Amino acid sequence: MEVKEKILQMAKASKMAVKVIGRVNTNVKNIALEEIAKGLKENLSELLEANAKDIDYAKEKGLSKAMIDRLTLTEKRIEGMINNIKEVIALPDPVGVIVKMWQRPNGLRVGKIRVPLGVIAMVYEARPDATIEAASLCLKAGNTVILRGGSEAINSNLCLGEIMQNALHKAGLPKETIQVVPITDREAVLALLEMEEYIDLIIPRGGEGLIRFVTEHARVPVLKHYKGVCHVYVDDNADLKKAEEICFNAKVQRPGVCNAMETMLVNEKIAKIFLPKMLERFVNAGVEIRGCDKTCAIFPKAKPATEQDWPAEYLDLILAVKVVKDMEEAIAHIACYGSNHTEAIVTEDYSKAWEFLERVDASVVLVNASTRFNDGNQLGLGAEIGISTSKLHAYGPMGLEELTTTKFIVFGQGQVRT
Amino acid sequence: MEVKEKILQMAKASKMAVKVIGRVNTNVKNIALEEIAKGLKENLSELLEANAKDIDYAKEKGLSKAMIDRLTLTEKRIEGMINNIKEVIALPDPVGVIVKMWQRPNGLRVGKIRVPLGVIAMVYEARPDATIEAASLCLKAGNTVILRGGSEAINSNLCLGEIMQNALHKAGLPKETIQVVPITDREAVLALLEMEEYIDLIIPRGGEGLIRFVTEHARVPVLKHYKGVCHVYVDDNADLKKAEEICFNAKVQRPGVCNAMETMLVNEKIAKIFLPKMLERFVNAGVEIRGCDKTCAIFPKAKPATEQDWPAEYLDLILAVKVVKDMEEAIAHIACYGSNHTEAIVTEDYSKAWEFLERVDASVVLVNASTRFNDGNQLGLGAEIGISTSKLHAYGPMGLEELTTTKFIVFGQGQVRT
Repeated sequence: MEVKEKILQMAKASKMAVKVIGRVNTNVKNIALEEIAKGLKENLSELLEANAKDIDYAKEKGLSKAMIDRLTLTEKRIEGMINNIKEVIALPDPVGVIVKMWQRPNGLRVGKIRVPLGVIAMVYEARPDATIEAASLCLKAGNTVILRGGSEAINSNLCLGEIMQNALHKAGLPKETIQVVPITDREAVLALLEMEEYIDLIIPRGGEGLIRFVTEHARVPVLKHYKGVCHVYVDDNADLKKAEEICFNAKVQRPGVCNAMETMLVNEKIAKIFLPKMLERFVNAGVEIRGCDKTCAIFPKAKPATEQDWPAEYLDLILAVKVVKDMEEAIAHIACYGSNHTEAIVTEDYSKAWEFLERVDASVVLVNASTRFNDGNQLGLGAEIGISTSKLHAYGPMGLEELTTTKFIVFGQGQVRT
Repeated sequence: MEVKEKILQMAKASKMAVKVIGRVNTNVKNIALEEIAKGLKENLSELLEANAKDIDYAKEKGLSKAMIDRLTLTEKRIEGMINNIKEVIALPDPVGVIVKMWQRPNGLRVGKIRVPLGVIAMVYEARPDATIEAASLCLKAGNTVILRGGSEAINSNLCLGEIMQNALHKAGLPKETIQVVPITDREAVLALLEMEEYIDLIIPRGGEGLIRFVTEHARVPVLKHYKGVCHVYVDDNADLKKAEEICFNAKVQRPGVCNAMETMLVNEKIAKIFLPKMLERFVNAGVEIRGCDKTCAIFPKAKPATEQDWPAEYLDLILAVKVVKDMEEAIAHIACYGSNHTEAIVTEDYSKAWEFLERVDASVVLVNASTRFNDGNQLGLGAEIGISTSKLHAYGPMGLEELTTTKFIVFGQGQVRT
C-alpha cells in the first residue's frame, strides 16, 4: 500500500508538471537540456561513485560480464551521454507544428496541431544511459517522464535523477518533469501500470518477461519494444555480392542488438553458389551456423538446426540458415517466426522487391540494405526512444514526433451545425 | 471454456482473412461494399423480420422508448445504411499511400507507407446501423473486423452479418473478413480482450461501464470512445450574437450526442447582459437550466446546480451554467471536469483565442464555432468510426486513415552500416 501511495504521488506530480512543460517554448526546454549536460559534467565524481556501488553489488550478485559492462559508466560514456543531449537540443521541436490545415465548405478552418502526449512512464532494465536518453527526448517533446529502471542501476539512476532535477530547477521548470522511481520492486511497476488517470503512456523496454508482465497488467496504453527476430531473404535474382555484404553486416557488425539478423533465408536456386563462400566468411568471423538439412548438406560445418532455432533471438554470434524453395516460402517463414521488427530482401527483381515490401508485416522492411538500418538516427528521425513493434500510434523507430499526438483545432466565424 | 474456444476460432479466422483483404486493391474492396449494399436491398424483409424479434424482446424486457427507437430498423433507415456504404465507396483508399519519402546521405530511400492495422474488434451497444458503419469502414481500410454488438440487437446483427458474408463471398473475398459474434454474454468480450496474439485493436463504444470493463481487462490495445462533457466558454470579448447562436446550437440541435454542450461557462463581465436573453431562449426551447449561485441570481428560473452537475454528461435538454471570473477560471474548470472531448471558446480576442486553443486538452478545440462540429464528416475526414478520447494513435474523430498504421519501407543499393 505504501508503494502504491508513493507512486500515486509521483504520478500526480507528473500530471501537474506537464501543464508547465507542455506549454513552454523550445528555448526554455533547450536551456533545461543544457543545464542537464552541464550537471553531468559538474557531478562526474558523484556519478561515478554511485555507479561504483551498483557495480560492486552486481559483482556480489554474480551478474554476467556483459551485464556489468552495460551497467558501467566511464568518463567516456558520460561524455557520450552529454553528446546525446546536445543532439536532442539540435533537433527541431515537434510541439506546436501544424501538421495539416484545410478549409471546409462552410468556411471553418480545421487543423491538426502537434501536442505532447503528457505523462510517460518508462520501465526498463540495466543501462543507466537509457535514463538520460529517455528523459531528454521526453522533455524536448514537452512530456513529463517517470523512469523506473532496473534494480541493478538504482544508485546510478537516483544520482542521474538528482542531477536532472537540479538542472530543471535552474532552468525554472518544475523538477517533477523528470522523476526516478526510488523503489525497485515489481510492486512499483504494477502501480504505474494501473494509473490510467494520470499516466498517458507506458514504454517497456527489456526482455520478454518484462514486456509480457506489462502487457498483462497495464490499464495505461503500452507501446511495446519487443524482440527482433530479423531475417534477410537472399532471392535467386539477388546480386550475390550485395547479398554477401548485407548479410555479413546484418549479422556481424553488432550481433547483440535487436536489428541484427538472426535467420538467413536463401533461395534454393542459388544456395549452392552462395552458401559455401558466405558461410565460410561467417565461420571465420566466429559465427556459429545452425542450418536446415539442405544447408548442412551444402556446408558440413553447420550444426543441424532444431525447431527452437527458427523463433530464436540469439543476440549473439549464432545464425540460423534455411534454404527455401522461393520467395513465397520465405514470406511464409517470416510470417510464422518473425517478430514484426525488421525484414530484408536482397533481389534485383522489381516485382519481387515490391511484393516483399507489401506483404511482409514488419515495422521496417528493406530492399538491398542491411537490417541494421532500423534505427531512428539511421533512418533520419534523429534520436530515438526505441523501436515500437506495436502497430498502434507508432510502428518502428520512435523519435520526437512519436512522443507527441495531434489534436484538432478549429477556427470559426460563428458557424453552427444545421 | 467453450465461449473462449469459439472466440479463438473467430480471431484466428480473422487473422487469416486479413492476409487477403489487407492486400487486395481498392476496386475489389469497393465491389464487396457494393455487394453489401445490394444484399441489404435484396434481404430487406428478412432483416426487418429479424429486427422485429429484437424489438419484441426489448419491449418484453421493458427497455426505454429511446432505446427501442435506436434499435428499430425501418425501410428508410436501411436506405440510410445503404447511402452510408456508398459514401464509404466514394472515399479514397488510405492503404498504400506513401505518406512521406526522403533520401539519406548514404543514398537509402526511406518511406512511410500506409498499411491496414489488421484485425479490429469492436464492442458496442444497441444500434444495429453501427454494425454496417463499422464493417464498411474496416473493410475499406483493409482490416478484418469482429463485431460484438449488444444482446438487444443480436437478431438484427446476425442477419446483417449473414448478408455481409454472402456479399464478401460474391466479391471473391473471405467471408471471415467480417464476423458477428453470436454470443451475447460478457465472457465473449473478455475472451476478445485477451487475444493479443490475434487482435490488433479493440474499439469499445458505449456507456462508461463498458469502457471501464474493457480498459481494465484488455491486453489488446484499446482506443477509447468516451463520454463528452463539452463546454462552451463565452469570453468577455465575445461577439454576443455569435455566442448566442453557437451556444444554442451546441445544446439544442441534437442534445443526445457526445459533442453536445453540457456546461456553459460565462465571463462575469458580460454575464448580466448575456445570460437573461440566452437562458430565456434555452428555457423556451425546453432546456432545464442548472446554474451556479451567480447564474441563479441573474436568472431566477434556473435551478441551483450541485457538485454532481459539473461532471455530468446529460445527453438531454439540461444545461449547467457557471459564471467565471476570467478565462483562467474557465480553463481550470474544463481541466477539472472536461472529458478531453470537445471544448469551445467564443471570443474576438486574438491572444485569448490562441491561448485557449493551446492550453485546453481536448481532441477538438474550437474558436467561434459550435461543439457539434466534432464529427469526422463535418471536419472533412469522411465517414468516422467514432471519436477517440485516447491520446495514442488517434485523438478525435477516427476516419479511414486512423484505421491504418504506417510501416517504414527502405530502398537500398547494397548499403551496409558502418
